[in-house]
Amino acid sequence: MATGFGFTLNATDGAARSGVISTPRGDIRTPAFMPVGTAGTVKAMMPESVRATGADILLGNTYHLMLRPTAERIAGLGGLHRFMNWDRPILTDSGGFQVMSLSSLRKLTEEGVRFSSHIDGSKHMLTPERSMEIQKLLGSDIVMCFDECPALPADDATVAKSMRMSMRWAQRSRDAFGDRPGHALFGIMQGGVNRDLREESAKALEDIGFDGYAVGGLAVGEGQEAMFSVLDYAPGFLPQDKPRYLMGVGKPDDIVGAVERGIDMMDCVLPSRSGRTGQAWTPMGAINLKNARHKDDPRPLDAACTCPACRSYSRAYLHHVVKADEIIGSMLLTWHNLHYYQQLMQGLRDAIGAGALSAFVAEFHARRGAGDIDPL
Amino acid sequence: MATGFGFTLNATDGAARSGVISTPRGDIRTPAFMPVGTAGTVKAMMPESVRATGADILLGNTYHLMLRPTAERIAGLGGLHRFMNWDRPILTDSGGFQVMSLSSLRKLTEEGVRFSSHIDGSKHMLTPERSMEIQKLLGSDIVMCFDECPALPADDATVAKSMRMSMRWAQRSRDAFGDRPGHALFGIMQGGVNRDLREESAKALEDIGFDGYAVGGLAVGEGQEAMFSVLDYAPGFLPQDKPRYLMGVGKPDDIVGAVERGIDMMDCVLPSRSGRTGQAWTPMGAINLKNARHKDDPRPLDAACTCPACRSYSRAYLHHVVKADEIIGSMLLTWHNLHYYQQLMQGLRDAIGAGALSAFVAEFHARRGAGDIDPL
Repeated sequence: MATGFGFTLNATDGAARSGVISTPRGDIRTPAFMPVGTAGTVKAMMPESVRATGADILLGNTYHLMLRPTAERIAGLGGLHRFMNWDRPILTDSGGFQVMSLSSLRKLTEEGVRFSSHIDGSKHMLTPERSMEIQKLLGSDIVMCFDECPALPADDATVAKSMRMSMRWAQRSRDAFGDRPGHALFGIMQGGVNRDLREESAKALEDIGFDGYAVGGLAVGEGQEAMFSVLDYAPGFLPQDKPRYLMGVGKPDDIVGAVERGIDMMDCVLPSRSGRTGQAWTPMGAINLKNARHKDDPRPLDAACTCPACRSYSRAYLHHVVKADEIIGSMLLTWHNLHYYQQLMQGLRDAIGAGALSAFVAEFHARRGAGDIDPL
Repeated sequence: MATGFGFTLNATDGAARSGVISTPRGDIRTPAFMPVGTAGTVKAMMPESVRATGADILLGNTYHLMLRPTAERIAGLGGLHRFMNWDRPILTDSGGFQVMSLSSLRKLTEEGVRFSSHIDGSKHMLTPERSMEIQKLLGSDIVMCFDECPALPADDATVAKSMRMSMRWAQRSRDAFGDRPGHALFGIMQGGVNRDLREESAKALEDIGFDGYAVGGLAVGEGQEAMFSVLDYAPGFLPQDKPRYLMGVGKPDDIVGAVERGIDMMDCVLPSRSGRTGQAWTPMGAINLKNARHKDDPRPLDAACTCPACRSYSRAYLHHVVKADEIIGSMLLTWHNLHYYQQLMQGLRDAIGAGALSAFVAEFHARRGAGDIDPL
């Protein structure tokens, strides 16, 4: 484990765990949900508001930041924390996933990925070494290995070939990262929905040795059932004493199911992206504020919620500002959604600490069935 | 003067005045700048942030609100203050100006204006009586007479004919408003750039009797020089003991010049609209954050400013989020601009109170000439 970086397990309940990741920039309570601040901002939120929802850590996207404003520019300005006014921990992804989903003219080789920017068509190359360099320039607290994964479904041979290259890239990432006290490097398990490949990948990563381990290559089209079936075994292949991070997940019920299966960290654009399209997540389910049924409704989104959107505004107001494309609609609904996600994480942490996770999960599912859900 | 509504002049300096408008919802320090909350929100701002900039009062637009979500709906939800979470005074315009600039298929008669909504083409009619009814439904603290004005330049006969109809509408507005304790009705002087017509209009309004008087029909294309030449005499036609409101003004130097000439209240979309297009107003002049010269600049917009954008972010960051169309760019720059405007108003109030307005104005103009201005 890197100097100045630690993980303490405080409680377990079945496969679920609660604990604390300690970093020089502050503690991260786990299970943790990381809001996504793609291009140096959690969209429509001031960073102090993100913190007020209870977030201990943000995620930044290497792909977006390397293209604009560039990692070198951010380094020259004192690093990503100072640039975006967030002094707590930041995890950066490696850029691998976004390159494959957003860039054009991609050429994937053993060396890395050559591509054209989706912003201006400029040509770039990402390799394990360059990804480590960029994440260092950004000043990331938790650095992710550069990896690659196929969209699912994919045949086993494709998944195996890709996974084995990602494991070679994991070694190159480890070598390039070196020893950076206070900064952690996480490996990323691949292997799709194939148990043997997942186990092979986990062993390869553990042989290299990382400060934490991600379960990658899920939430890429396989569906919740397939994802949970992988999570029924994959976390068990990873070291007990290191944090486990499920990348790009998810909806509230995905998060609950992942935590039940031993995941410690997650990230997703869903709560912020939904907030910009008029969708609110609540314990009762998703509420679509565009729906005309809200236009005269004086009730808050969720009377039990303490976020600014629920404390001070009616559903009628939220409906109005969403329909009128007013920026405050994005601001209020993003705040609400991030608040709800962090409340859910706190509930999960408390339940695990109390050994009462199954009751918490039963209540979570019961409330979602109790109504007030809009067709989306 | 309406019961529960008052105006106290505290100091004068030349033609300039400082004072307090008292209302049941709180005091308004004058000279006052009113941020515009067109459709139930000051765009890109939380209302508590608007208040934090120092705003004592907001302006709401009757035209926008009557079309969406409708005045009847807002009344059913407890009025505009509760709807938009702003418990301090609100001034609403009459809808007359926006109807003429935004709607389509307009037909102007002695009765009022028939028009089609710019949102959905639906047909509506605004008359003095309907405007009073809508502003009452909204719960406006300061209600404006329904009026009409031609774009300038216009010939005297056109301006005179329009002005006289507006004076008949002012009487109808007064009759329809009735007696509403705690709510004020302001008349609107018209007459273009013609001194005799301005005087005739002022007398007509004073004969009817209002709680305050607006100078209307300026900032409609005549230019600052022509506007100031009207303001050199027009405020003097109005009662000394009532607030004087210059509608739709303006840039910082417009505001300073208007205050020098005896104006007590102003409103303008400029600081908020500019904030959404990457433009910042500072004591040194306007700064265009889109300009590439900012991309590596670690300095704040204005080192002396205490707003969140200046306290916690570099020009390089603001450049980045403006170029990347991130919502936080609009949030930070709108906040900065409204903060700067309110600081300017506080400076004007303090200077008038100290009998030092001319020194303040000289310093204002000197700093604007001192550099750091982007070509816009």
